[in-house]
Amino acid sequence: MLVVMKAQATPEQIQAVCDAIAQLGFRAHPLPGAQRTAIGITGNQGEVERGNLEALPGVAEVIRVTKPYKLASRDVKEEDTVIRFAGTDAALGGNGLAAIAGPCSIESREQAFAIAEKIAAAGAQFFRGGAYKPRTSPYSFQGLGLDALKIMAEIRDQFGLRIVTEAIDSETLDLVAEWADVIQIGARNMQNFSLLKRAGRLRKPVLIKRGLSATLEEFLMAAEYVMSEGNYQVSLCERGVRTFSDHARNTLDLSVIPAIRRVSHLPILVDPSHGTGRRDSVLPMARAAVAAGADGILVEVHHQPEKALSDGPQSIYPDQFARMMDDLAQIAPVVGRRLARGIRVETPVAEHA
Amino acid sequence: MLVVMKAQATPEQIQAVCDAIAQLGFRAHPLPGAQRTAIGITGNQGEVERGNLEALPGVAEVIRVTKPYKLASRDVKEEDTVIRFAGTDAALGGNGLAAIAGPCSIESREQAFAIAEKIAAAGAQFFRGGAYKPRTSPYSFQGLGLDALKIMAEIRDQFGLRIVTEAIDSETLDLVAEWADVIQIGARNMQNFSLLKRAGRLRKPVLIKRGLSATLEEFLMAAEYVMSEGNYQVSLCERGVRTFSDHARNTLDLSVIPAIRRVSHLPILVDPSHGTGRRDSVLPMARAAVAAGADGILVEVHHQPEKALSDGPQSIYPDQFARMMDDLAQIAPVVGRRLARGIRVETPVAEHA
Amino acid sequence: MLVVMKAQATPEQIQAVCDAIAQLGFRAHPLPGAQRTAIGITGNQGEVERGNLEALPGVAEVIRVTKPYKLASRDVKEEDTVIRFAGTDAALGGNGLAAIAGPCSIESREQAFAIAEKIAAAGAQFFRGGAYKPRTSPYSFQGLGLDALKIMAEIRDQFGLRIVTEAIDSETLDLVAEWADVIQIGARNMQNFSLLKRAGRLRKPVLIKRGLSATLEEFLMAAEYVMSEGNYQVSLCERGVRTFSDHARNTLDLSVIPAIRRVSHLPILVDPSHGTGRRDSVLPMARAAVAAGADGILVEVHHQPEKALSDGPQSIYPDQFARMMDDLAQIAPVVGRRLARGIRVETPVAEHA
Amino acid sequence: MLVVMKAQATPEQIQAVCDAIAQLGFRAHPLPGAQRTAIGITGNQGEVERGNLEALPGVAEVIRVTKPYKLASRDVKEEDTVIRFAGTDAALGGNGLAAIAGPCSIESREQAFAIAEKIAAAGAQFFRGGAYKPRTSPYSFQGLGLDALKIMAEIRDQFGLRIVTEAIDSETLDLVAEWADVIQIGARNMQNFSLLKRAGRLRKPVLIKRGLSATLEEFLMAAEYVMSEGNYQVSLCERGVRTFSDHARNTLDLSVIPAIRRVSHLPILVDPSHGTGRRDSVLPMARAAVAAGADGILVEVHHQPEKALSDGPQSIYPDQFARMMDDLAQIAPVVGRRLARGIRVETPVAEHA
Repeated sequence: MLVVMKAQATPEQIQAVCDAIAQLGFRAHPLPGAQRTAIGITGNQGEVERGNLEALPGVAEVIRVTKPYKLASRDVKEEDTVIRFAGTDAALGGNGLAAIAGPCSIESREQAFAIAEKIAAAGAQFFRGGAYKPRTSPYSFQGLGLDALKIMAEIRDQFGLRIVTEAIDSETLDLVAEWADVIQIGARNMQNFSLLKRAGRLRKPVLIKRGLSATLEEFLMAAEYVMSEGNYQVSLCERGVRTFSDHARNTLDLSVIPAIRRVSHLPILVDPSHGTGRRDSVLPMARAAVAAGADGILVEVHHQPEKALSDGPQSIYPDQFARMMDDLAQIAPVVGRRLARGIRVETPVAEHA
Repeated sequence: MLVVMKAQATPEQIQAVCDAIAQLGFRAHPLPGAQRTAIGITGNQGEVERGNLEALPGVAEVIRVTKPYKLASRDVKEEDTVIRFAGTDAALGGNGLAAIAGPCSIESREQAFAIAEKIAAAGAQFFRGGAYKPRTSPYSFQGLGLDALKIMAEIRDQFGLRIVTEAIDSETLDLVAEWADVIQIGARNMQNFSLLKRAGRLRKPVLIKRGLSATLEEFLMAAEYVMSEGNYQVSLCERGVRTFSDHARNTLDLSVIPAIRRVSHLPILVDPSHGTGRRDSVLPMARAAVAAGADGILVEVHHQPEKALSDGPQSIYPDQFARMMDDLAQIAPVVGRRLARGIRVETPVAEHA
Repeated sequence: MLVVMKAQATPEQIQAVCDAIAQLGFRAHPLPGAQRTAIGITGNQGEVERGNLEALPGVAEVIRVTKPYKLASRDVKEEDTVIRFAGTDAALGGNGLAAIAGPCSIESREQAFAIAEKIAAAGAQFFRGGAYKPRTSPYSFQGLGLDALKIMAEIRDQFGLRIVTEAIDSETLDLVAEWADVIQIGARNMQNFSLLKRAGRLRKPVLIKRGLSATLEEFLMAAEYVMSEGNYQVSLCERGVRTFSDHARNTLDLSVIPAIRRVSHLPILVDPSHGTGRRDSVLPMARAAVAAGADGILVEVHHQPEKALSDGPQSIYPDQFARMMDDLAQIAPVVGRRLARGIRVETPVAEHA
Repeated sequence: MLVVMKAQATPEQIQAVCDAIAQLGFRAHPLPGAQRTAIGITGNQGEVERGNLEALPGVAEVIRVTKPYKLASRDVKEEDTVIRFAGTDAALGGNGLAAIAGPCSIESREQAFAIAEKIAAAGAQFFRGGAYKPRTSPYSFQGLGLDALKIMAEIRDQFGLRIVTEAIDSETLDLVAEWADVIQIGARNMQNFSLLKRAGRLRKPVLIKRGLSATLEEFLMAAEYVMSEGNYQVSLCERGVRTFSDHARNTLDLSVIPAIRRVSHLPILVDPSHGTGRRDSVLPMARAAVAAGADGILVEVHHQPEKALSDGPQSIYPDQFARMMDDLAQIAPVVGRRLARGIRVETPVAEHA
């Protein structure tokens, strides 16, 4: 259920509607738009009596929402969501393209800095690196944990890159929220509803990767879990789904981009590294993602992929990343975008060379 | 890596090998078999020097295991695992067939007792019921929580049924371990590795449901996560996978049963309720599962499915469950099994009728 | 559109309705049932004016059929279709279970007779063997063609087995129709609509295998293609679909059996050989198919599978087939069936031993 | 098996090797490259004795090919195949991008000409239109047949567009080969091996659409069937595969483009119309296809899609096609291509307006 306020509704009227919703035992989610404010109503206690709300001052109409996702839907919020980061021009959503790059896992301070320097120089605005790794095998490298988080915080200070890293459970969620700028929820946790709800109680941006067999609706419902707790800074990331097709690690489903645009206001990024699992497919699919309308790219870069502790075969070299950035910068205007290149560092940062 | 002891190896020799493994910085998992003991070695620090171990007294051979799953593999333990429950003839694995039945969610004490009485009368040995529900929508019924666990504990006392219920995160895991007999890990958490590891530190039987797009190897690796922490009481449950096929809620992949038998010693059960999502397909697929060699059936039963708060359309009626038990009892001998009918209650339990 | 005649409608009244339909430019398909006759109307020229037909003598009602399949639907014909073979008790559909067995390819007269003798002795009623092989590679063995058809005709005479073999194009269709008893349309041709239509113009039973990614509706529409041309002797065969699941060659979708029973009157068989691609999975899945309600089994048997020119790894040995028949005979009564064992040859047929 | 000739080998030496291969009972396929000629050997009679061939004059080496596809492989022919059309600059493969556009079905001369005029004006080099339609339902519009072929021949004369249309069986294959410029083999016939072989005996370009569940290897084996008969003018077309993903009609698998480039020299096009089934996804996915490296686009255009007899919802309007061409022209240089705009007709063709 959704209450659409009149364009000229006052803050007091909006508050009065929220109070009325709360009195009915529901939860009100005021969502300011460019023209007017909509108020989403959530709660599982049944149906709201629509008449009561429609009679309140400042209310334009009350709409029944039939899709199971509400707060993630364009019905509730027509304008695209843009997640901004104070003190930078980095953003998820909006006219710019986000470039998130870095190694699968943080392996050491040296490795992380070597890569960060290169990707910052190529114009990335975000650094990604795994501190806690959800590995298929209990005997595989599981990440450096808190040490990795601290290394990445240093990278933020040094290079001005925003930090994106994955939380895998409630303990690591709190740590990631403390040290990073964007909390990543991985594909294997896309339906870990306890984790999603807990992330919803934080006030940090969340990036949710699509589950290996998630439908569009399930993908948006994962966002809805976070948003239903009051955290509206959610972005989505397509990273390939599991099909019979065996020429790539996963099947990158780029047509989900226009499909999400139709029904949701949330930013949608693409990870061509996990999406293909092959270094020589990453660049073509990164270009394709931007051409299809993605809000950004999340890509694995490693300066020595043959020595990487995880996902070496799908990590690209820093010079390949630089070429990718050039290609994306050329394609961006065709789709009405521009590639905002963070603080492009043209001169090498000597101390970490 | 796997150390196979000679048939006549003494307990002291076995302990000495375990100590040697620990000194190398690895973890030893002694796995007694009918003929001889094998000792699995796990740990991610690299390769063990095989020669050192082969020279120890009582060692028959040291085998390199190429599959990523070790403790779950028949290479490590040839005999089928049987999980027994003290004071009952209920078991997961072995010659008997396990019948686990009950409602999707515990909705009230009345509902739970009404169903438990019926399924006990029909010969089930296990009662299943959801206390914590992983629902796709944050606005759906999420379960009664601890109250549901307490109701099920009463059911155990009243009807002699062992209790199977799902844990969805670390908090609920501890509660489920305290109140129930078997901890269920749901399909959506099959790769929630933090939860699996934590379950591995408990000493309660764990039943892992196959993820919606899990390969056989990933399914066994989920078991490996639990076992690598020392909890070897693991059983598996096929519940349908996600494919293009749209005539059922999921595609029940029964051929995974002989496939698992070939490579693993763990019990494999089948859930025809989630596997099909349709009441009129449950009985045919339950029969098919047993005919294919399953170790048991996990099925949703509700006395008033049209009023159920979750999964009504796939819940069968108690009299359908009774007929299922009769059919399974007839098919069991064809596959060298028998359907052990718990304490079949022939007379109605008056106080809960 | 479907015209349901009254129970007491005369043959003349039925004919009059058919004539009226033809005059409207449509095609009438009279389908006699146990109680009454229904007349299916097909043709793509648009909507029939229902009123005209309802007024005709003997008409009970005129029903609009919403599913795209009409003649294959239970709406049009409620009773199960049974395809009988004159002079034998072999049948596809009905209370009996059909057992169709034989080599993937006919390789020589000696090979074919050696296998036929064994499967006849074990009680099969049908012999299957490939004369024309749709091979993925142009460089693989493509079948013996007409010679194979002649060998199988001899097998029919010698052992009383009905012959099932695949047609792959219009040329081979005419030859198969001439020499065999059942025309098989393979999975790769399930949407070869030209071939289906041509098979519809023949008056020989047709067995259609499910395409690798065919939905239930597409599967039934393939049958509809044959039936729309007037050939109603159609049976279906599940043989595994293509999914991400990699432990078997295909994913055998047994839940399609109850799903087809709900909406269609056509017999549905199962091929556990192609369905699994592994010898040791064939017997468990054959049992499961019958337990799920299949009308029969189509299975590859070879006396020397290690020397077979095609599909050796999934062919079972004759003694495994004999055990399968024993198992199926025991499961059959649980699902209200019996395994009619053709003319079970107890004594060896000397001249081909 | 593949014989690689020396760069300086004479035509007589090449012929002598071909003769030697033929004498051994195999088939020789001479494949001239920029530097040297390779000779593919096909036939299923077993292994060639490599030594005999290596000793012949002009032979550089004899290579065993392990992939089942040979003639379609880059091992046999390193240079990209380019299919040219005499008297035009239209091509499939090479530096240019092919734009193939037109209605799903030819419905009338008026409809076809109205669309052809628009797409020619926007710069397409090829006109596509269905004459024979493989429809899922026997009751759906099946195409105008020969009349449609004649209309398209007129369109070629009038607008200079090359004609692409589908053949569905041997009868229509001969007609399509007579009237059209490119023979399309549809997704549902991708493993209709009889049709592929027959197309291989013609000397017209063949465009093969990927089957709904075809792996990369099966896709290339379909090409191999055509090529093994001596017709090397084969191009491929990705059109979406069938997966669980339900937000689009099919899942367009664009990562197959770099995957095919790695192993095959054949052109690979993309059909975003069937690939998505939604008008508003066609343009984004067409851009993505070119950005991923496709050799061209095959797209459905209709001037009145709401009245189309087939595939209306996925057909774009002529002005959307014109915008697509503009977008593709901008993306092409990023991937080292250019969009050759046939004979771009700037002035309206009056007599068909």
